[in-house]
Amino acid sequence: MRVLVVGAAGTIGQAIVRALAPRHEVIRASRSKSQVKVDLTDPGSIKAMYAAVGRLDAVVCAAGEGVFKPLAQLTEEDFRFTLSSKLMGQVNLVVYGMDHVNDRGSFTLTTGILFEKPTPGSGVLAVVNGGLIGFVRAAALELPRGIRINDCCPGWVSETLTAMGMDPKGGTPADIVAKDYVASVEGTATGRSLRSVG
Amino acid sequence: MRVLVVGAAGTIGQAIVRALAPRHEVIRASRSKSQVKVDLTDPGSIKAMYAAVGRLDAVVCAAGEGVFKPLAQLTEEDFRFTLSSKLMGQVNLVVYGMDHVNDRGSFTLTTGILFEKPTPGSGVLAVVNGGLIGFVRAAALELPRGIRINDCCPGWVSETLTAMGMDPKGGTPADIVAKDYVASVEGTATGRSLRSVG
Repeated sequence: MRVLVVGAAGTIGQAIVRALAPRHEVIRASRSKSQVKVDLTDPGSIKAMYAAVGRLDAVVCAAGEGVFKPLAQLTEEDFRFTLSSKLMGQVNLVVYGMDHVNDRGSFTLTTGILFEKPTPGSGVLAVVNGGLIGFVRAAALELPRGIRINDCCPGWVSETLTAMGMDPKGGTPADIVAKDYVASVEGTATGRSLRSVG
Repeated sequence: MRVLVVGAAGTIGQAIVRALAPRHEVIRASRSKSQVKVDLTDPGSIKAMYAAVGRLDAVVCAAGEGVFKPLAQLTEEDFRFTLSSKLMGQVNLVVYGMDHVNDRGSFTLTTGILFEKPTPGSGVLAVVNGGLIGFVRAAALELPRGIRINDCCPGWVSETLTAMGMDPKGGTPADIVAKDYVASVEGTATGRSLRSVG
């Protein structure tokens, strides 16, 4: 398959590329560090990316930033930024990408554990993850030509915890998290929120 | 209790007012038809409303509009409008209202069945409802002074179906839907998505 991985330079994105590359043609996209550049907050940038890369069998997104901050300190800008990046950036990857994906292709988005298991500070990300899970369920009913859509819902990633100076045993290694993305691309599920171990 | 009902002029809002009025002081707010005027898409209007109404024990919202449209026809404006109205309007009711609500008070927001049971055309509303359900779960962990928050998740309302020329038996009467809102205001639940019958 011809697979576009958006967010390919990130911790999860690199693991997804490692897992897919032996069996598929992988096109890597990210904001600045990959062969294809894309800014998820800019619909024009998403459209230009699709025009540049040609037909695809699968689109995988492991990109999109979010704000983690106490409820009482949240500003309109915190919501605006995260909604435009992780939420609408991924929604627009689907809306603008559906005509570029081949019959029986797929979209795989990234949500996160903070919808099912929120923590203090997760107000914005719980909105974004819940919104994306809802979008995946609804879009699965309408995507044409057998195109599927799922989201992967990672918890904490070991490498991220290490980078934050925390115990990596509290998380799941990125290569394990990547298995859910591979299952979404190569399997038959649609409208599902796939939960990583941990 | 002193209860602010936002969206008091709507079908569900009127039923909530009827249910609460015998036991509580109810302040009605809506965009144009109530004693207090508020535009949920405008944070300044929400702040002005709270400054005008004084201390509250409960805030109930049955307002916020959304677009229902096939996935392939959705525009950036469809998402922008619905996110600013039903999603961020209700989030801002909480963020800007928490300091105006008394100890052990409550917020009750409106989501809807299209997150759990999406239909074709529900792409935007599934995002908004999922986002709000996530926000309620997360905000419940952080609201101060014992303030609670829940959402009510109505399905189709009989009176709405009648107004659309459809069989009202396919829905739930507004007076029944209103019982979940009353349970949220008068009960002890927090962080819950309350499901109406039907």
